[in-house]
Amino acid sequence: MSYNTFGRVFRFTTWGESHGPALGAVVDGCPPGLTLSEADIQPFLDKRRPGTSRFTTQRQEPDQVRILSGVFEGRTTGTPIALHIDNVDQRSKDYSEVAKAYRPGHADYAYDAKYGFRDYRGGGRSSARETAARVAAGAVARAVIPEVTILAWVEAIGGDSIDYAHFHAAEIGNNPFFCPDPHAAKRWEALVDSARKAGSSLGAVVVCEAIGVPPGWGAPLYAKLDSELAAACMSINAVKGVEIGDGFAAAALSGEQNADAMRPGADGAPRFLANHAGGIAGGISTGQPVRVRVAFKPTSSILTPVETVTRDGEAAEILTKGRHDPCVGIRGVPVVEAMMALVLADQKLLHRAQIG
Amino acid sequence: MSYNTFGRVFRFTTWGESHGPALGAVVDGCPPGLTLSEADIQPFLDKRRPGTSRFTTQRQEPDQVRILSGVFEGRTTGTPIALHIDNVDQRSKDYSEVAKAYRPGHADYAYDAKYGFRDYRGGGRSSARETAARVAAGAVARAVIPEVTILAWVEAIGGDSIDYAHFHAAEIGNNPFFCPDPHAAKRWEALVDSARKAGSSLGAVVVCEAIGVPPGWGAPLYAKLDSELAAACMSINAVKGVEIGDGFAAAALSGEQNADAMRPGADGAPRFLANHAGGIAGGISTGQPVRVRVAFKPTSSILTPVETVTRDGEAAEILTKGRHDPCVGIRGVPVVEAMMALVLADQKLLHRAQIG
Amino acid sequence: MSYNTFGRVFRFTTWGESHGPALGAVVDGCPPGLTLSEADIQPFLDKRRPGTSRFTTQRQEPDQVRILSGVFEGRTTGTPIALHIDNVDQRSKDYSEVAKAYRPGHADYAYDAKYGFRDYRGGGRSSARETAARVAAGAVARAVIPEVTILAWVEAIGGDSIDYAHFHAAEIGNNPFFCPDPHAAKRWEALVDSARKAGSSLGAVVVCEAIGVPPGWGAPLYAKLDSELAAACMSINAVKGVEIGDGFAAAALSGEQNADAMRPGADGAPRFLANHAGGIAGGISTGQPVRVRVAFKPTSSILTPVETVTRDGEAAEILTKGRHDPCVGIRGVPVVEAMMALVLADQKLLHRAQIG
Amino acid sequence: MSYNTFGRVFRFTTWGESHGPALGAVVDGCPPGLTLSEADIQPFLDKRRPGTSRFTTQRQEPDQVRILSGVFEGRTTGTPIALHIDNVDQRSKDYSEVAKAYRPGHADYAYDAKYGFRDYRGGGRSSARETAARVAAGAVARAVIPEVTILAWVEAIGGDSIDYAHFHAAEIGNNPFFCPDPHAAKRWEALVDSARKAGSSLGAVVVCEAIGVPPGWGAPLYAKLDSELAAACMSINAVKGVEIGDGFAAAALSGEQNADAMRPGADGAPRFLANHAGGIAGGISTGQPVRVRVAFKPTSSILTPVETVTRDGEAAEILTKGRHDPCVGIRGVPVVEAMMALVLADQKLLHRAQIG
Repeated sequence: MSYNTFGRVFRFTTWGESHGPALGAVVDGCPPGLTLSEADIQPFLDKRRPGTSRFTTQRQEPDQVRILSGVFEGRTTGTPIALHIDNVDQRSKDYSEVAKAYRPGHADYAYDAKYGFRDYRGGGRSSARETAARVAAGAVARAVIPEVTILAWVEAIGGDSIDYAHFHAAEIGNNPFFCPDPHAAKRWEALVDSARKAGSSLGAVVVCEAIGVPPGWGAPLYAKLDSELAAACMSINAVKGVEIGDGFAAAALSGEQNADAMRPGADGAPRFLANHAGGIAGGISTGQPVRVRVAFKPTSSILTPVETVTRDGEAAEILTKGRHDPCVGIRGVPVVEAMMALVLADQKLLHRAQIG
Repeated sequence: MSYNTFGRVFRFTTWGESHGPALGAVVDGCPPGLTLSEADIQPFLDKRRPGTSRFTTQRQEPDQVRILSGVFEGRTTGTPIALHIDNVDQRSKDYSEVAKAYRPGHADYAYDAKYGFRDYRGGGRSSARETAARVAAGAVARAVIPEVTILAWVEAIGGDSIDYAHFHAAEIGNNPFFCPDPHAAKRWEALVDSARKAGSSLGAVVVCEAIGVPPGWGAPLYAKLDSELAAACMSINAVKGVEIGDGFAAAALSGEQNADAMRPGADGAPRFLANHAGGIAGGISTGQPVRVRVAFKPTSSILTPVETVTRDGEAAEILTKGRHDPCVGIRGVPVVEAMMALVLADQKLLHRAQIG
Repeated sequence: MSYNTFGRVFRFTTWGESHGPALGAVVDGCPPGLTLSEADIQPFLDKRRPGTSRFTTQRQEPDQVRILSGVFEGRTTGTPIALHIDNVDQRSKDYSEVAKAYRPGHADYAYDAKYGFRDYRGGGRSSARETAARVAAGAVARAVIPEVTILAWVEAIGGDSIDYAHFHAAEIGNNPFFCPDPHAAKRWEALVDSARKAGSSLGAVVVCEAIGVPPGWGAPLYAKLDSELAAACMSINAVKGVEIGDGFAAAALSGEQNADAMRPGADGAPRFLANHAGGIAGGISTGQPVRVRVAFKPTSSILTPVETVTRDGEAAEILTKGRHDPCVGIRGVPVVEAMMALVLADQKLLHRAQIG
Repeated sequence: MSYNTFGRVFRFTTWGESHGPALGAVVDGCPPGLTLSEADIQPFLDKRRPGTSRFTTQRQEPDQVRILSGVFEGRTTGTPIALHIDNVDQRSKDYSEVAKAYRPGHADYAYDAKYGFRDYRGGGRSSARETAARVAAGAVARAVIPEVTILAWVEAIGGDSIDYAHFHAAEIGNNPFFCPDPHAAKRWEALVDSARKAGSSLGAVVVCEAIGVPPGWGAPLYAKLDSELAAACMSINAVKGVEIGDGFAAAALSGEQNADAMRPGADGAPRFLANHAGGIAGGISTGQPVRVRVAFKPTSSILTPVETVTRDGEAAEILTKGRHDPCVGIRGVPVVEAMMALVLADQKLLHRAQIG
């Protein structure tokens, strides 16, 4: 079943293929009266934009967003906001091989198995280009939650992790890896370069933190804040794992080690002595930073030939030429931030629906 | 926002508190004509039932399910199926301490912050007793997907993992830990016993595999099979992490290492040489086993006093007396299985909605 | 597709058959802290209860509601509220004829055509007994919208209409027809009695008005307040038409005749000089009374034999013995009120989700 | 709450304002492999297009649709279909009066009351221009239900009804009123002309019939086929009433008069002797023609001054200059047809989800 809408009251729907004329999103349920223009959205798209360093795909896309509805005289009207991004650099290459044989790790076989055929040009709907639409929608979501600051970074590439002793938020924008540790950024330059030159690819771990989420957002039980975040992050291309707070590490702890003790805080709200829970208890925010950790698999497009089969069931070998990200997790950083913003905007509105 | 429905066309809604008179689920959208009686549901509830060994809570609940609607002459009618389970052993203990002070790791503070007050008896709605309703609904879901075999087990407790060289599916039912490795089961006996006696608790990792899922179930993009599974598993009490296939391990691999190569299979469908992807590509099943890995944090109820605050903002210490599971992940096994069944039943129906 | 949930943020799900052991509703998304007990719900069920006069079915059902969850110490907790009503008077009659032949006007043939078989006892899921669950849920909805007063009445039976010159709201409770015009009530007594004795049945028109709805509830475009009300009313058994405000009469007017002119009001809000629009413009409430008009067809169960076919496709004649309402529209009054309350509660919460 | 998506598995979302740069729809959940191009959609838009006779608004809009996604090599891919229509003839007139004072019968006051401000240019989101997006989406829906033939017509204008003795389906396309009775068409010419010249407007009744709907589409209880149709039609601008089958007329009948008797049919399916029910029983199609009747109020834009208030609460008079339809119900015909198609496509897919 094709299902391209996310959210419950603050909802967005995306559309578009890698090599179609355009892609976009419709954001519905946005509160009225918020200041919004293309200039508020463009910086987030620029952050995600391909072709900005040699560590990302060389496809050149300006990713200029246009707002086609829902904004009047610089403010949201409360009606649906249509966001439109033209595709510009769909290279007219020969797709006959991809059309015929399934690229392992890609959606090729699964799409054909489901739909009977597929738009094979650049991955069609399964291309990570779709994430541009999410990032644009996420910028609208940020306008809904001005009280929240969202920050994501790459924690590890190809198993090489940052050292949190060297974490500097200010460093994240200073390198092409969204890396908060300058030492790791240095190492990754060599690592990613070497993978890129070898026609190989690398996985990555992205961490995202939202600060300023008040206690009380979320729900028991099937729209738990953690459940919504897991769905949101797992819907991103190439993501294979999601953790809230300590995640799998918590599974190795004892109850004493995992307890987030509380003391009376200055303002009446409790002060937490730890945040193993990642800012969520019982599916509801606690007022601590909401923290999610996301695993990106290595890009499936590689230059090493891999055994596969054709549509006709014949044995074949395939290698994926053309432009791609050697580490798709890097450009996942603005995408994870966008999904965090989209989930939190929806939860904020859901919260005030029920609580007032 | 309270949100207690899960699923898109095969949907279920649960209700009930730990110490209310009963709990239950309404399953809607179930196909008609399926053979169903209480006897088809009860074995799954029995598997999850508390009080069956010293390694789980000593609360005694028969968890006898009754079908109140939607079944006529032994077959589903296609109309909503109401499942009803009486609460029997709500011990009338003194909850004044829990009512006053927040138990760290529990939903106590978050619920109060959201709703202004809470049913504090046994955790109220946030109690894992709710999972009985899911397990009952899951049994209905299994009737919808007879082609699929679902099997879950505990992979690790307190960081002590099984050895897959000693994996025997038949062992899972032979010990109180749903442990497929008899050596690990032996070790866990001592481990959990010691935690229990110390009033401590342990986290666990549960793995669940679905065999027989045909290629094509799932969706691009916001109801991806992996996204739905992530939401489903993360909605279970105490779960803090979800992986599909290799999950976080894939983030440390190269593209070559992570590729699931294919060869022509006997029946026309490809034969995969590996399953790093956990049976899902592009959000859609590939026909391989669908594999999910779930992290349960240690039970938050422990006998060691922890610093906390009261509802009035005063400093306090709290320790959680009463009955509880020393390792809530163990009884998570039938719950994860149920969520897998519920997601797959929904996806099967969604698939045939769009594809026919 | 079976679909038994209504609402977007304030949602309810009903279950149960006419001759099953019980029926009920789960209300989810209700705000916390509202005073609620069985005593707040029972009066509405009593109003709808069968067997209270000779003008309704003689089935004797106490329709005692029990709240099984979501209320703690007399207040809603914000978690799902399970409402349970036992069926008591399912007469064990012989259903072999109904099982075999389709009653014209009933859901018999359509259910069989869809589901392949059906619970034929008393109409199964298609019985108007389901409306007891709605009425119970509606009582919860009323607690959400204390600012709104809802009043419904029967406007016509069998084509004999009240005279609005004789409209007295206080009369509605003084006769078994929910009739605001004492003269009409008199006439209906003879009319319905005669139909009842002849084994015939009569259609009816019900009008429902909600006073106190503030301007601003509703939505463009697919959850318009009028659209939601139309869906809500048309989901009631035997309803075949819905009008907002002047409805079909407006189709015969000119723009001048239909204009609801405005003058400055005492409190800043406009004072409307007419209410052709039924309190809704552009899908959003205007602050005027919200007015809906609902057509109930005559009860399909009649004692006159009608041509029909059997399940095996044979010609047959059928007449429906047993207990039934000679005019199902009469007991529709509390049901329409409940649906009005349920829609308005949902819209109130949706409004504050988006607007705050 | 802004809510601009309709449907459950076959869903569409519309966006756009009367005077924005464009409007459009995203259709999601469409089955793959259907032949679809702009040429399949354009005829329906042309049918609805303004400026084609003196009886509709003089706004000149080519309403050329572009498919921006979801179609590959002439066939639907199963992924979201983005439909885009540029606005061309947004006349740059002076809106200062409409910005300041509320036009009675329009959404002006309600939008302001809800959102605090509004896009007042040509009605903004509340303009009937939005229906172009529905009509485009409806054309996609038709491709999903090739077994169904949908036909709508105008039954009455300003209270002057056609005579069904003179009904000729072939006449519908022969006059600018979608009128099946040539005598009525003649009369309406004078009627509408006179209203147009007087700056007045007229209401209308539209009837829509779907032939070929198999028995079994629909649902108990809250997504009943009649309930979905009522919601769909009532979501159209200016609609104030919806009837299924005999509608309000049925409320004046006895059970004998209203019974749709059945006889054995040639093909095993029953042959119905009447269709008072409009092809729906118990919320599920019976195989008879599905028939809906829709009341359109007169266009609220009239040249006669009407009392109103300004945004500042001052008394004012307003008359609506500019281009508008003297009878908005006329162009409602293709819109009602589109909504019928959209509901039926959704119900067809929902049916096969549950039944297979």
